[in-house]
Amino acid sequence: MIEVGPNSYGKSAIRLVKVDRDQTPHRVRDLTIAIALQGDFASSYSEGDNTAVIATDTMKNTAYALGGEHLTSSIEAYGLVLGRHFLAEGREVELAQVSIEAHAWRQIGSAPDAFTRDGSETRTAVVSVGRDGFRVEAGIADLVVMKTTRSAFAGFPRDRFTTLPETGDRIMATKVTASWGYTRDVEMDFDAVFDRVRSTFLTAFADHDSASVQHSIWVVGRAIVEAHPEVAEVTMSLPNLHHWTVDLSPFGIANDREIYVATTEPHGLIEATIRRSDVSSGKS
Amino acid sequence: MIEVGPNSYGKSAIRLVKVDRDQTPHRVRDLTIAIALQGDFASSYSEGDNTAVIATDTMKNTAYALGGEHLTSSIEAYGLVLGRHFLAEGREVELAQVSIEAHAWRQIGSAPDAFTRDGSETRTAVVSVGRDGFRVEAGIADLVVMKTTRSAFAGFPRDRFTTLPETGDRIMATKVTASWGYTRDVEMDFDAVFDRVRSTFLTAFADHDSASVQHSIWVVGRAIVEAHPEVAEVTMSLPNLHHWTVDLSPFGIANDREIYVATTEPHGLIEATIRRSDVSSGKS
Amino acid sequence: MIEVGPNSYGKSAIRLVKVDRDQTPHRVRDLTIAIALQGDFASSYSEGDNTAVIATDTMKNTAYALGGEHLTSSIEAYGLVLGRHFLAEGREVELAQVSIEAHAWRQIGSAPDAFTRDGSETRTAVVSVGRDGFRVEAGIADLVVMKTTRSAFAGFPRDRFTTLPETGDRIMATKVTASWGYTRDVEMDFDAVFDRVRSTFLTAFADHDSASVQHSIWVVGRAIVEAHPEVAEVTMSLPNLHHWTVDLSPFGIANDREIYVATTEPHGLIEATIRRSDVSSGKS
Amino acid sequence: MIEVGPNSYGKSAIRLVKVDRDQTPHRVRDLTIAIALQGDFASSYSEGDNTAVIATDTMKNTAYALGGEHLTSSIEAYGLVLGRHFLAEGREVELAQVSIEAHAWRQIGSAPDAFTRDGSETRTAVVSVGRDGFRVEAGIADLVVMKTTRSAFAGFPRDRFTTLPETGDRIMATKVTASWGYTRDVEMDFDAVFDRVRSTFLTAFADHDSASVQHSIWVVGRAIVEAHPEVAEVTMSLPNLHHWTVDLSPFGIANDREIYVATTEPHGLIEATIRRSDVSSGKS
Repeated sequence: MIEVGPNSYGKSAIRLVKVDRDQTPHRVRDLTIAIALQGDFASSYSEGDNTAVIATDTMKNTAYALGGEHLTSSIEAYGLVLGRHFLAEGREVELAQVSIEAHAWRQIGSAPDAFTRDGSETRTAVVSVGRDGFRVEAGIADLVVMKTTRSAFAGFPRDRFTTLPETGDRIMATKVTASWGYTRDVEMDFDAVFDRVRSTFLTAFADHDSASVQHSIWVVGRAIVEAHPEVAEVTMSLPNLHHWTVDLSPFGIANDREIYVATTEPHGLIEATIRRSDVSSGKS
Repeated sequence: MIEVGPNSYGKSAIRLVKVDRDQTPHRVRDLTIAIALQGDFASSYSEGDNTAVIATDTMKNTAYALGGEHLTSSIEAYGLVLGRHFLAEGREVELAQVSIEAHAWRQIGSAPDAFTRDGSETRTAVVSVGRDGFRVEAGIADLVVMKTTRSAFAGFPRDRFTTLPETGDRIMATKVTASWGYTRDVEMDFDAVFDRVRSTFLTAFADHDSASVQHSIWVVGRAIVEAHPEVAEVTMSLPNLHHWTVDLSPFGIANDREIYVATTEPHGLIEATIRRSDVSSGKS
Repeated sequence: MIEVGPNSYGKSAIRLVKVDRDQTPHRVRDLTIAIALQGDFASSYSEGDNTAVIATDTMKNTAYALGGEHLTSSIEAYGLVLGRHFLAEGREVELAQVSIEAHAWRQIGSAPDAFTRDGSETRTAVVSVGRDGFRVEAGIADLVVMKTTRSAFAGFPRDRFTTLPETGDRIMATKVTASWGYTRDVEMDFDAVFDRVRSTFLTAFADHDSASVQHSIWVVGRAIVEAHPEVAEVTMSLPNLHHWTVDLSPFGIANDREIYVATTEPHGLIEATIRRSDVSSGKS
Repeated sequence: MIEVGPNSYGKSAIRLVKVDRDQTPHRVRDLTIAIALQGDFASSYSEGDNTAVIATDTMKNTAYALGGEHLTSSIEAYGLVLGRHFLAEGREVELAQVSIEAHAWRQIGSAPDAFTRDGSETRTAVVSVGRDGFRVEAGIADLVVMKTTRSAFAGFPRDRFTTLPETGDRIMATKVTASWGYTRDVEMDFDAVFDRVRSTFLTAFADHDSASVQHSIWVVGRAIVEAHPEVAEVTMSLPNLHHWTVDLSPFGIANDREIYVATTEPHGLIEATIRRSDVSSGKS
């Protein structure tokens, strides 16, 4: 006997730009949206029966059609509108997940109508709406950060394949993917909370002495959970983008942590969730 | 109270090329390896205690050092050696996951020592070794396939945001990510089984009439599970890379499914697991 | 005084797929097209005068509209049709350049209607049509090749910053961008000639002993120009994708050119044109 | 007779990071460097004679070795040092071209040692040093800009393949690649001049009414050449990243330039040089 196991379907990479010209400067919202539905769709696989399959093209149309009226505050609020729409639209739908990336634009000088895209980071949100409530995860992606001191890596075990020297002062650089889960079923001023969590992230990253990337995840994650009661947990995925000190001794040149080679291959990869232990996590 | 939740760490993007010149033609193995460890590592986060943290640089060295002796048959067998090594090396390690991508090279003519890289697909393997056994998932990535007929999409619901016409004959194109889990704790001739599963995949894809991408996942996945008793389940993630018929009527030109525009944004995304229902799945 | 200097404008990344179902198997042509016009367009810059500016959207439409009737043999022939169209359409146009990338699809087994995309190489053509004739450059891109022996690099100068050892047997790997210019104003069976030049390229690459990437460009380029009278010159841009032998001696393991690390950063980059010296080159 | 035509060779993608910890905040320079040599190297191709071939590995070493002492002011000044070094080192060298991309880092708050990478733009410089002098081109890459009003496209010719409506108010978005050539053989405070030119670029982009991308290139380019006597010419390559108004009328929803779909394929591509007509251009 063969059966359909876990499954989802939807539309990805919907590129929506909304311009509000009633404001000065104009407000530009630049989103990449993915919609995915889960539910009672087994027969669409095993029978090729499309009677319950809301077309992904319809999902795309819906995102644009609802954008004018409903994309007015946070991306999380808009995601909730979209998610609820698809639950109302299809009774086979058990979970509608709306993932949104927001690309930031910065005003040029004091111009009301000219902008540069801020490629330094992407704001993310994943809104999951089910029959029994919703969950929101907010996050940051593509943010590259560096500590030029106060980062060490020592005390690790040495076996026959270990050649890495211990160091008390290295560069730590990483491209942050972080997301944090809010308390279930609570709507809030998602923009304001995002700004506060982001600020805590950067402050904690800048302030701490790091014993390892693992340790940094803890310090930063704990700071976020401690400072923001709305946050149930925070998950980080941090590549260790190694910066190796270049050996210039063959050339008779000293290099006291001044000249580095930046590398991407291979890279460390450290992933962890930091969470409140006294509440059931929002994550399955 | 704040605690460390699920976590893992390791080294990614280890680029290993091995050349066996004792064969004619030379045998080229070209791998991208990622190693990730899970286990009792909470204190490495919360205390910055590295005493149990096998350095990711050591992981990289180990992959190269063991390559000569142990990378001699399949990538799955090599992954098992690496995974077992790290379980033996660190008693805090509960799970060692070795992910390998194999990039194929084809002999040029009858030359023993000249090759072109086959960029058409990547073979993948994820080997997870725990204290109580192991699990192997094999797979294919980056394989772009197309059906030029016998692909339909009709009978889907129409709401106020639906504009997509029904079609009985469209192009279906997708970039395949497929992986299949083998029966737990069984070592086999992984190369031979991979070839057979891959062959079934392509044959089933070519042979069937598709009512939707969902339906195609079912047909292809079922064919694999039916034909290969070693396979417990198969998971596919298929973007629907839409090819839209270009409307040439403004120019007085007929276009009966001849001229298409290929698109990547937005795209459908269909993901599902097809599995035996009479055995407990290898997947959690 | 300020003026408009060299300029061009056009449409890039036009994605056209054509399916001929009258053949068995179906014939799939999958093209990415760029069209660029040069000519007397200074006032479109300095005055914002669009009266001569064929819209790039119109260029896109034209590529699709002419595809049915005129994309029937080679991409070069189709490029000539497009280029001539734009010269006829706009009297300010002095040069119409049509660049086409062709992505190959391979039949699955003996199926008439199922294909895999061959990601191993891209065929390219740049067709430049002017008032006084045309020029065609054909080429290959994205083709990754490797020699596992018979590649050396020795005899180079050593200064105070030189640490690279000489080697008589290294791996040479490169991602080929090659293009060759055909005799001006001659139409030919471009598909047949392409196949022959490509074959010479691979044979010469496989057969020769390489003293350097530079030397390989010469050997391969000369072979092409010698064997194909239609070819006036060939230009190659070859990154040297270094494969370094891993030093396993710290682990007491010998590594006699068996285990390599493949790298992309940094990479050598060698570019040269090999040409007939007895004819005026087709290139400016 | 077959000969070696134009050629160059060198090292690309050299990733150099320099940290000056004597400043508060620390100064981070993050560069990607490419070095290419031209000259009397024909025999390295046709004879495989490496006696004049400075190894590209040596070029890489040189970039790192000279970084400590000589990478102290602008990237242009450092490029001049590198270029002159290679002319001194190899008498066959006729032209040494050093291309540098500088990736910016911004201080986090007031921390002396923590930074975020500014992914919004890349500063570029190409320094070409010959036996008879040098030339410097500075530039900007990867800068995405948008005008939300005051951008039109009308008055273009309409032929049988034209469907684009005229518009008096569209979004104009582009990813800027701009470079400008300085007066030959003059060293200057390249950092200060770069900042001034960049400022002019943004101001002119924000301030003008655009009749087309071509027109914008003229307005912005002319502003730069007019305001900065050091600049002989400026070249821009601007993709037109179309934002199309979404047709929501099938859903009974008005869309007065509010909801757009952002696209990348296909895209317009406009390239031009704006230059002083009363001086001989620095460009060939």
